[in-house]
Amino acid sequence: MLPDNIIISADAGADLSKAIASVQPSKIAVLVDQNTRANCYPLIREHLPEHLLIEIVAGEEEKHLGSCQHIWQAMTEEAFDRKALLVNLGGGVIGDMGGFCAASYKRGIRFINLPTTLLSQVDASVGGKLGIDFQGYKNHIGFFQEPDRVIIWPGFLDTLPQREVRSGFAEVIKHCLIADGSYWAMVSSKGLEGQAWQEIIPRSVGTKYKVVQEDPTEKGLRKILNFGHTIGHAVESFFLDRGENRLFHGEAIAIGMITEGYLSVQKCGLSEADFKAFEAYIREVYDDYVIDTADIRAIAQLSLQDKKNSGGTINASLLNSIGDCAYDIPISLEEIEGALAYYLKK
Amino acid sequence: MLPDNIIISADAGADLSKAIASVQPSKIAVLVDQNTRANCYPLIREHLPEHLLIEIVAGEEEKHLGSCQHIWQAMTEEAFDRKALLVNLGGGVIGDMGGFCAASYKRGIRFINLPTTLLSQVDASVGGKLGIDFQGYKNHIGFFQEPDRVIIWPGFLDTLPQREVRSGFAEVIKHCLIADGSYWAMVSSKGLEGQAWQEIIPRSVGTKYKVVQEDPTEKGLRKILNFGHTIGHAVESFFLDRGENRLFHGEAIAIGMITEGYLSVQKCGLSEADFKAFEAYIREVYDDYVIDTADIRAIAQLSLQDKKNSGGTINASLLNSIGDCAYDIPISLEEIEGALAYYLKK
Repeated sequence: MLPDNIIISADAGADLSKAIASVQPSKIAVLVDQNTRANCYPLIREHLPEHLLIEIVAGEEEKHLGSCQHIWQAMTEEAFDRKALLVNLGGGVIGDMGGFCAASYKRGIRFINLPTTLLSQVDASVGGKLGIDFQGYKNHIGFFQEPDRVIIWPGFLDTLPQREVRSGFAEVIKHCLIADGSYWAMVSSKGLEGQAWQEIIPRSVGTKYKVVQEDPTEKGLRKILNFGHTIGHAVESFFLDRGENRLFHGEAIAIGMITEGYLSVQKCGLSEADFKAFEAYIREVYDDYVIDTADIRAIAQLSLQDKKNSGGTINASLLNSIGDCAYDIPISLEEIEGALAYYLKK
Repeated sequence: MLPDNIIISADAGADLSKAIASVQPSKIAVLVDQNTRANCYPLIREHLPEHLLIEIVAGEEEKHLGSCQHIWQAMTEEAFDRKALLVNLGGGVIGDMGGFCAASYKRGIRFINLPTTLLSQVDASVGGKLGIDFQGYKNHIGFFQEPDRVIIWPGFLDTLPQREVRSGFAEVIKHCLIADGSYWAMVSSKGLEGQAWQEIIPRSVGTKYKVVQEDPTEKGLRKILNFGHTIGHAVESFFLDRGENRLFHGEAIAIGMITEGYLSVQKCGLSEADFKAFEAYIREVYDDYVIDTADIRAIAQLSLQDKKNSGGTINASLLNSIGDCAYDIPISLEEIEGALAYYLKK
């Protein structure tokens, strides 16, 4: 089942028109980066009434307060009122940050998300997480608020480089591993290139929604979505300022799933065979290795800042088996270092 | 009736201890400015477990993103997790901004407000409005979230200069005028010095709560709380950067209530006699006049940015009679200028 505010769309322009008509905004702004301006905006432009185009620089490293100030200022200068609408056209950065800006502008205007990457279509589209990075910590500042409408059009994926699609695919793998063994059987029977996105997207959105619905503010079950992210986020943070050498989110999460899978065997009884099977699949899809042994300690330290931690303990979500995930499992810095060392040994 | 999360306290320290015990935070920070650090913090310090003290510079002009960054950074450096607690000890700036920082830190930690000014005790304590100013516009960035607990101790008022108490008193007058004629009869029978705060505070909190409860996100009725604030906020914004000559919030709202009272007679049938009566009372309490005829146009222009506006129309809340307020009444720039000219003629 899909959430009420999400449409899996066969025609993004028409669905956007309808959504705007139902909101009846006083003014409209469309938030883009240089990539979505060039590749996605032309695909929907004719369906948009008069609007303000707000452009930010693409990239996770732009997901900060400075960009928010740019967005807030653009709306303020055009005297946007509380009945205005923000349309976020882009990936996770645009959706998370545009949502944060909209939901806090004059204590909240409405916003519609058009996720254009696989990652944002299957992941950020569900759950109402808004936010920005702060001092190198991912999504450190933010809150929860659902978009008025999320229009997911698989056609946008044709505008993406393959590396970007591969990044989003990590969340698809995660959805299988934490919640749906039969979904995993389906996905793992094909490589990345063979996947049918029109089937994958609704299934991943539905899986995530089922989890989020039971625990909207992440007090319990929702934490299973964090599988691969305790170490994965630390890896991603570590490479955030490396420019060309930075990792895509899913590439970091792939490392996170292997290392946390390794810890799942040790701590949660995940079978060695199941671990080896998905480890091999992930290593085949994500076949580039960037971490150096010398980085292990620094990466482990970064995991201390994970939002799921409490009172100095690092809490991870680890697999009991494929399709079944536990949460609030305390892990130590040493265990994280050991898992990263295992990942590197291969 | 008072909201569940508000305590009118006879012993702030004891009630704070109890509130902290029920929250069981992993860490605690207390947000103060130099005034509340000197005058209020010593009154509760012995009741606080180990904590981080975060100090900001006092004043509305510090209610901006830069101060938020300071607060977020202080909590980040001490590795505050999602079970941490922020105690906001101060007036409206501390409560609004501290609440904003807490409710957006790692997507929300708990916070307790100890309002120390009359204004924050009778006004900001109810309704969950959080936020900061942006580019001179008041509360331009923010959202709604209730504090875990609000502990209102009238004893803090003894730490305040009289001008600060007088500022808060404007909201008391407003509560009477918009919602409770008998409350107005009680308040207007005495001057500022004769008021009994232990009676006033619960009555004002109860009045505001009744309104907010019916309309938590300000879609309708809650807008009556904006009486005096359409023009009042514009006046306050106009003087925001005047340093020593800036107006206190209530002083601006006093001007707002007179000018919007004048428009209420013209547009909503408020009787001339009722208007003259409360006008005289307000002018006697707020007897200093700072606006110049040359400022009228610029002040009126600033009212265009009011959050209650929609599609270029300025919407005000105006009185039908004392104790009965209408909202979404469109007023023109010319009418605002006329009302300010009336205010100045006296």
